[in-house]
Amino acid sequence: MTRPLRLHPDRLFASDPVQRDIARTLYAAVADLPIVSPHGHTDPQWFATDAAWENAAELLLTPDHYIFRMLYSQGVPLEALGVPSREGPPATDPRAAWRTFAARYHLFRGTPSRLWLDHVFAEIMGFDVQLEAATADLYYDAIAEKLASPAFRPRALFDRFGIELLATTEGAEADLSAHHAIRASGWNGRVVTTYRPDGVIDVEHEQFAPAMARFAALTGEDVWSWQGYLAAHRRRRADFRAAGATATDHGHPSARTANLSPREAEALFARVTGPDPSPEDADLFRAQMLTEMARMSVEDGMVMQLHPGSLRNHNAALFASHGRDKGADIPMRVDYVSALKPLLDVVGNERNFTLILFTLDESTYARELAPLAGHYPCLRLGPAWWFHDSPEGMRRYREMTTETAGFYNTVGFNDDTRAFLSIPARHDVARRVDCAFLARLVTEHRLEDWEAAELAHELTVGLARRAYRL
Amino acid sequence: MTRPLRLHPDRLFASDPVQRDIARTLYAAVADLPIVSPHGHTDPQWFATDAAWENAAELLLTPDHYIFRMLYSQGVPLEALGVPSREGPPATDPRAAWRTFAARYHLFRGTPSRLWLDHVFAEIMGFDVQLEAATADLYYDAIAEKLASPAFRPRALFDRFGIELLATTEGAEADLSAHHAIRASGWNGRVVTTYRPDGVIDVEHEQFAPAMARFAALTGEDVWSWQGYLAAHRRRRADFRAAGATATDHGHPSARTANLSPREAEALFARVTGPDPSPEDADLFRAQMLTEMARMSVEDGMVMQLHPGSLRNHNAALFASHGRDKGADIPMRVDYVSALKPLLDVVGNERNFTLILFTLDESTYARELAPLAGHYPCLRLGPAWWFHDSPEGMRRYREMTTETAGFYNTVGFNDDTRAFLSIPARHDVARRVDCAFLARLVTEHRLEDWEAAELAHELTVGLARRAYRL
Amino acid sequence: MTRPLRLHPDRLFASDPVQRDIARTLYAAVADLPIVSPHGHTDPQWFATDAAWENAAELLLTPDHYIFRMLYSQGVPLEALGVPSREGPPATDPRAAWRTFAARYHLFRGTPSRLWLDHVFAEIMGFDVQLEAATADLYYDAIAEKLASPAFRPRALFDRFGIELLATTEGAEADLSAHHAIRASGWNGRVVTTYRPDGVIDVEHEQFAPAMARFAALTGEDVWSWQGYLAAHRRRRADFRAAGATATDHGHPSARTANLSPREAEALFARVTGPDPSPEDADLFRAQMLTEMARMSVEDGMVMQLHPGSLRNHNAALFASHGRDKGADIPMRVDYVSALKPLLDVVGNERNFTLILFTLDESTYARELAPLAGHYPCLRLGPAWWFHDSPEGMRRYREMTTETAGFYNTVGFNDDTRAFLSIPARHDVARRVDCAFLARLVTEHRLEDWEAAELAHELTVGLARRAYRL
Repeated sequence: MTRPLRLHPDRLFASDPVQRDIARTLYAAVADLPIVSPHGHTDPQWFATDAAWENAAELLLTPDHYIFRMLYSQGVPLEALGVPSREGPPATDPRAAWRTFAARYHLFRGTPSRLWLDHVFAEIMGFDVQLEAATADLYYDAIAEKLASPAFRPRALFDRFGIELLATTEGAEADLSAHHAIRASGWNGRVVTTYRPDGVIDVEHEQFAPAMARFAALTGEDVWSWQGYLAAHRRRRADFRAAGATATDHGHPSARTANLSPREAEALFARVTGPDPSPEDADLFRAQMLTEMARMSVEDGMVMQLHPGSLRNHNAALFASHGRDKGADIPMRVDYVSALKPLLDVVGNERNFTLILFTLDESTYARELAPLAGHYPCLRLGPAWWFHDSPEGMRRYREMTTETAGFYNTVGFNDDTRAFLSIPARHDVARRVDCAFLARLVTEHRLEDWEAAELAHELTVGLARRAYRL
Repeated sequence: MTRPLRLHPDRLFASDPVQRDIARTLYAAVADLPIVSPHGHTDPQWFATDAAWENAAELLLTPDHYIFRMLYSQGVPLEALGVPSREGPPATDPRAAWRTFAARYHLFRGTPSRLWLDHVFAEIMGFDVQLEAATADLYYDAIAEKLASPAFRPRALFDRFGIELLATTEGAEADLSAHHAIRASGWNGRVVTTYRPDGVIDVEHEQFAPAMARFAALTGEDVWSWQGYLAAHRRRRADFRAAGATATDHGHPSARTANLSPREAEALFARVTGPDPSPEDADLFRAQMLTEMARMSVEDGMVMQLHPGSLRNHNAALFASHGRDKGADIPMRVDYVSALKPLLDVVGNERNFTLILFTLDESTYARELAPLAGHYPCLRLGPAWWFHDSPEGMRRYREMTTETAGFYNTVGFNDDTRAFLSIPARHDVARRVDCAFLARLVTEHRLEDWEAAELAHELTVGLARRAYRL
Repeated sequence: MTRPLRLHPDRLFASDPVQRDIARTLYAAVADLPIVSPHGHTDPQWFATDAAWENAAELLLTPDHYIFRMLYSQGVPLEALGVPSREGPPATDPRAAWRTFAARYHLFRGTPSRLWLDHVFAEIMGFDVQLEAATADLYYDAIAEKLASPAFRPRALFDRFGIELLATTEGAEADLSAHHAIRASGWNGRVVTTYRPDGVIDVEHEQFAPAMARFAALTGEDVWSWQGYLAAHRRRRADFRAAGATATDHGHPSARTANLSPREAEALFARVTGPDPSPEDADLFRAQMLTEMARMSVEDGMVMQLHPGSLRNHNAALFASHGRDKGADIPMRVDYVSALKPLLDVVGNERNFTLILFTLDESTYARELAPLAGHYPCLRLGPAWWFHDSPEGMRRYREMTTETAGFYNTVGFNDDTRAFLSIPARHDVARRVDCAFLARLVTEHRLEDWEAAELAHELTVGLARRAYRL
């Protein structure tokens, strides 16, 4: 006996009828607004080639670390799911991988992955029964059939999803060929890039040297000299802007920034690009480069994003066997108050500069981030991120930031995903949770209904368009 | 078209009708109780001279860092708001400043400032339309007219607000002349002072030397010797008690305390009052002085308050141009468990000593503060403070402290404000949020209704009167 | 006039009728399931001898640090409550102690102790009036009378409570005679032990040397040599398994682990068992022993529990006069991410090993613990612990762990108590709070009702049985 799959129209609204009615009204006005996706990790090649995906496992399972990390935590080997190791993809039959996943779908109860996947299954794929062991093959076959149809090609889905803009993220050493191909193709979908120079800033990254080599080749600059290195960044930022970028992004272990004199910075650069840089120098260099990037943003107008606080590759054995991005990144406690001060001492009062801050440490929302963003003209708060991109996470975010930073120092929603099909689901969850929060404020007479309606529109599209200068 | 301004009688109560009904009943019994304000920052000169305020900007905008920090965060220069710099007040027309504020009133949606201001506008000023660009002048003119009338003089408002007691805060170097004038005037309003000796304890404060000079002049003690310095504190504490004080207050960067031997303390005093004290010595001296103040409280019965964890003057450029208290103080992570141990080792088990702890770091509520206050006889928890003095902040405070510390280790509400007109609004918010919390406990059958009624009274007036020994 | 005592059948459910109805239905199906208590601190002697308890003070007051810490915080001396000092029990009349408590029962409003005690009073003792000064003697006498009856002996209550399994906790130096006596008695109640070797691992404990002496005597090993010491642990783990243990438990100041080479570990052991070990060595040894214990668990299948982050005996004067476990243990900030890495580098990917993590630092739920447990196969999250074993604490636990770790990386409820009579009350609170949480997810359409019913059963008995290998 299969179970029916239905998306309830009131999902994620409070059960209280007064709140629910208001939430419904607010949501109805924003549900069909275009999707503005100013920060994410989809593959631009999809939109450049518009090639069909092949099967459910390849599309939904293998690339989604939210999913395979949960299965791994419950004893499923990554091989059984078809997740590639450093040796390449295992010989796992994708259908068998899909069955392994389907039989354990109950593990996702209470998680946002469950909400996103059910949305994909019901809304995009049209299923009316739930995924479980008994329906694994039905799902697998139907998905394969759909993916073979033109309506499920990347560009067709992009249009169907109502995406106004989709930003991808590329390294400083990327050639942006997919983005150039998209533009050359005449397709009118707006896919832009984002400048993420971590690979040429983190001297401890195992790919630092080859990234620098490509950085040099793409810019023609002497990237091993401090001035040449900075000039190369300026060139690449211009290249990225030409490919539509309005923003940069920086994923650092901490929020540490530095404000060295030009002479100190040059000496530091020499040390970190020399043999065997010390961990402290490597960290100080990352810190200094945030301030350098901020200075360049003041010059060229690119919005800066900072995503700090993830300890990458916590599982040593898994990193050795499978490499990066395998669900083993773990958040750490982060300080913003003293860490950001050196950068803010330089550019904190610039009115034409925007730095969007993210966190994985929710204890900083009310204590540090809202007070900072509620004072500095350049600061804005990014939405609830990664492990907190979830109904409870978003609710806590609003409850802990709004009273000090207000709504207007936030920037709307980011889906931040590699999972293209989940994009409508993720934006829908965010719109619903925001409307539920606004509805509570209205029922508690902390906002008027017309204000909540204005805010729902701002949280859905207005703030993102303005903050990212789209 | 203007928008009506109405304060809903059920504001801040849950929308659930069962909870709301109970909250209404609880609130009705405490709504009109007198205001006990044992900790705040109003200017005693107002009550000494009873002079009229001049205009809306001077009264409501320029002195309120909650308001101008939000406007500044959205790109409004402080000059445009009439906020004084180190050079003095700018030449900004107060009406123009008010218009700038009114046009951006939507920025405060979802913040407690909005709740407080609307309360002031509706209840105290009698407006029935909302503040916005279109009503800026209407507001400005009507407020000016009211302020000119006798009913809006400080003492008249004090009486109208039903204030039972109002504590101000003065430095150890203050002459208390305003308080003496109030007492000499025959007016029966009870305005008392609080001993806040930070200015003569924080050797890193830029005004330390002149403060010490006044401290010496007022006491006749040799304040540059350790024994003379301690004797001067004892004298000034007595002076403050004579001016009605029942409490001291200490605003320190951290909760660090120390328990040095008399000889060590004396040597430390010599170092910090000598040339160029080290930051570590300056910090250790602040820590030691908390224990000295606690010892004096055991002697003289003054209740001690500790407000730690704010990094003052985070914005270096703004501090250079505008000085202190310009909305650039940012909370930091605070440890209480090891920090307070030296002091508690000395006075922790004293039954006749009270130390009221505050925090800007909500992660310490359930982890550190409630367990400490739920054990040590001398400890009590101050209410949700500053950035957390808000509906969500107060709710989190109760949810995270009550189960371990109970209600009776808390001390009622503090408005902690310089904004005299907002005092009724702030107490009203606190009463409503407490009643809403109690109502939830009743509906979940965790309290009986008659217990909730007793507690609502205690949280409104009983605990404050007893904790502050009024 | 006395007040009626009634336990409302809907207590701890949300007041919203939609949520409440679902919670009722979920709860009805689990309310009468057996009690699985895999971690606690009851005295096995009670079940070995089945001797009657004598009076209310001895049974409910004197051993319960939740209760006497609150009374102490409000100025009641421990002597007045009959709490033993290092000199032994005071000469306090137990009836007088009970009266002191009864007169202050209002202090517990809003705390879980109040919920547990009222459950004991109403359900187990059959009272229909509330405890207060006026009913103190009525309570005292009726409890004494009941305790004298066979139905209130430990084994009779064990059966009445429907306990499927009760785990106690014994040190490595315990002879387990009570457990042997239980087994020899032919009684069919399942009472098992848990291996808690802190006393022979924490070289800073004042009883370390005598504990080691008993450890040597019980094992016949040369416990002062590293290999003999490890062998003694293996022997005692086997002894404990023979007495029913399936788990070990470790109460450490922090979550620090280490992964020293055999040679380094042996040298460290020599230093910490030599004269005057340094605090750093003592801490490193605790850290290393967690990894050793984990290795032994991989060998022998015992489930490992880690309870870190309590600063024991914070109150120096009270520790001097009254010793340990007097309500003066205070939680501290805890790091798990870097602290656990050495251990996880060794055994993190073992599928046949389980490490159950607890915390007193709720800021780690969403930031560290859920991401760790949602990735590592060996990790599970223990329930909300100690100060957080409360309605709000459990709610925060579910809200902050579920979205990343799911339900299936948690292990059900632990009562963790010395207060035998409170065990049904504690499990009842947990079942109610979990059902209320699940009901909310159902009303928000984040779970189906049949999924919630499955989960309620899992959270009540299924997860605990499996996680603890019962």
